Amino acid sequence: MENSKKIKIAVDAMGGDYAPENVIEGAIMALRESNNRFEIVFVGDEEKIKNELRKYDTIGLSYSIVDAPQVIGMDDIPTVALRRKKNSSIVVGMKLHSDGEVDAFASAGNTGAVLTAATFILGRIEGISRPTIGSVFPTESGRKSIMLDVGANVDCKPNHLFEFAIMGSIYSSEILGQKNPKVALLNIGEESTKGGDVVLQAYQLLSESKLNFAGNVEGRDILLGKADVIVCDGFVGNIVLKFAESVLGVLKRKLRNYAMRNIFRRLTFGLLARGLRKALKEFDYQEYGGVPFLGVNGVAIIGHGSSTAVAIKNMIYRAEETVYKKINQKIKEALKTYKIKAEV
Amino acid sequence: MENSKKIKIAVDAMGGDYAPENVIEGAIMALRESNNRFEIVFVGDEEKIKNELRKYDTIGLSYSIVDAPQVIGMDDIPTVALRRKKNSSIVVGMKLHSDGEVDAFASAGNTGAVLTAATFILGRIEGISRPTIGSVFPTESGRKSIMLDVGANVDCKPNHLFEFAIMGSIYSSEILGQKNPKVALLNIGEESTKGGDVVLQAYQLLSESKLNFAGNVEGRDILLGKADVIVCDGFVGNIVLKFAESVLGVLKRKLRNYAMRNIFRRLTFGLLARGLRKALKEFDYQEYGGVPFLGVNGVAIIGHGSSTAVAIKNMIYRAEETVYKKINQKIKEALKTYKIKAEV
Repeated sequence: MENSKKIKIAVDAMGGDYAPENVIEGAIMALRESNNRFEIVFVGDEEKIKNELRKYDTIGLSYSIVDAPQVIGMDDIPTVALRRKKNSSIVVGMKLHSDGEVDAFASAGNTGAVLTAATFILGRIEGISRPTIGSVFPTESGRKSIMLDVGANVDCKPNHLFEFAIMGSIYSSEILGQKNPKVALLNIGEESTKGGDVVLQAYQLLSESKLNFAGNVEGRDILLGKADVIVCDGFVGNIVLKFAESVLGVLKRKLRNYAMRNIFRRLTFGLLARGLRKALKEFDYQEYGGVPFLGVNGVAIIGHGSSTAVAIKNMIYRAEETVYKKINQKIKEALKTYKIKAEV
Repeated sequence: MENSKKIKIAVDAMGGDYAPENVIEGAIMALRESNNRFEIVFVGDEEKIKNELRKYDTIGLSYSIVDAPQVIGMDDIPTVALRRKKNSSIVVGMKLHSDGEVDAFASAGNTGAVLTAATFILGRIEGISRPTIGSVFPTESGRKSIMLDVGANVDCKPNHLFEFAIMGSIYSSEILGQKNPKVALLNIGEESTKGGDVVLQAYQLLSESKLNFAGNVEGRDILLGKADVIVCDGFVGNIVLKFAESVLGVLKRKLRNYAMRNIFRRLTFGLLARGLRKALKEFDYQEYGGVPFLGVNGVAIIGHGSSTAVAIKNMIYRAEETVYKKINQKIKEALKTYKIKAEV
């Protein structure tokens, strides 16, 4: 696709707990706000999409619809669903992308299904053995760091972790704006002798590479911003991510319950509530639009299942950015630059 | 030791970031508050202990001192330190315990050194292949759950996870007061097919056992109280624990920075600060006294390195409770009751 052409983004209209409502609303927000900077292709049940679009004034907005009547639910088993639901928004959308009809596919639907579809339909970047899903963490320093993998790869070998580090570094420098990003291994201690065999060998690979490797970080360092790229296997990463996502909700409910017990508390709580929200906004994981599935031959962006319209809008921006910043091209170049040993 | 005799607890006077100050203060608080219900044996540099004790009126308090002039620092490598520092408070205290001079040993010092000393000097309970360190988590439901392992065992086999479940169940019912505690495996999804080989096999073992097994829980379920006993390997557990411990500090600093930006915010923040503290008190991990090292032939309680005097006091109470509730005896019985398959 040439630079002069508008970027086309396929959006899974049926993906997410509040689809198609939030998806359509978020996409329209993105088109209006960006002044039609890109083109959106809604993929999903045409009837439902049209019904939803009727709620808005869509004259002049650059979008089109591709019908995909089947829906892969949040609880569907990915491999089964992809085989049986060839006309689902995820399969159709991903094929549009692999056929070159669009430049990216973005979905807040069944994450496992999107990952599996991306891996099989788009294929992997040469030199990447395991595509990875990362998650952006806010940090106390104000810098955003990316942790990866957060669930795509449960069992990892040292070279997989090393590949995550390379992909994470590119994402950090290109999307999160960190120059020469610091890479760290998530471990149970800072010493180089900590952890199991896989982590120890990954430590070696990273030490010998040209990446800006800062050694190990512990669980307590994640939110402090000690590293820009935090590498771990998808089992640990997924558990930490889901734990982190749950914390704010628990604390908010705890505070609300406390405040509701008497009128004085309720008043002071009301005064501070807005402030609380503002102060903690960057820690609200719902604010992030989507996370990239790195290492596949294309751009697949995954949004949170409970995405709001604003989150959908940000997911679409993220897709656009990943395309125009040519993240995949940079990953390919980085593989040559950073890799010292290919396999372990 | 007979029931009629006072329980004797050896306390590592040199253990922790604020030793011996906080240790002595906390121990004296415990003796006063409990009206000398137990006897404390301070182990450490006699001179320093005596100096510290002079700050208090100690007449009538049931304590004694055993000199152990060497100190194992927080950064010492456990195995090396234990070999070289035979007269350290950790080695001397643990030996007092294995010799039957005291009923428990409690320390807020170098965790690795305490674990290693306990394993080698006390030995393991018959039938336990891997002693484990657990951590108590507050939950939204108000019930406290225990997660284990949180750092003693990085690489685990299925039967290790199964043993953790048994020990955790005993701790949950006896110390945390949960009847027929619900045991769950920490995993990346609720389905029984999730996770790597070790987790899958542990799932099988737990399903076939007589434990009250509730299946898998995810990272987001930890603070909700979906399970009373959460089982995982020490790599995952340690990272989640340290992450959790860091969250409250980060949020507090974030709120304070926000509040300090103008006078109105400062006033409302001041009003709510006390409430905030109260509402979140149970989420403050510093409030917990200590975590048990389960599966060794004896009672070894490990306190947080940065323990306050109150935390030390609670650590001592925890040691007492673990002794008089005969936790080890109950673990031995449980091993017979719950175990279906011995090895995997």
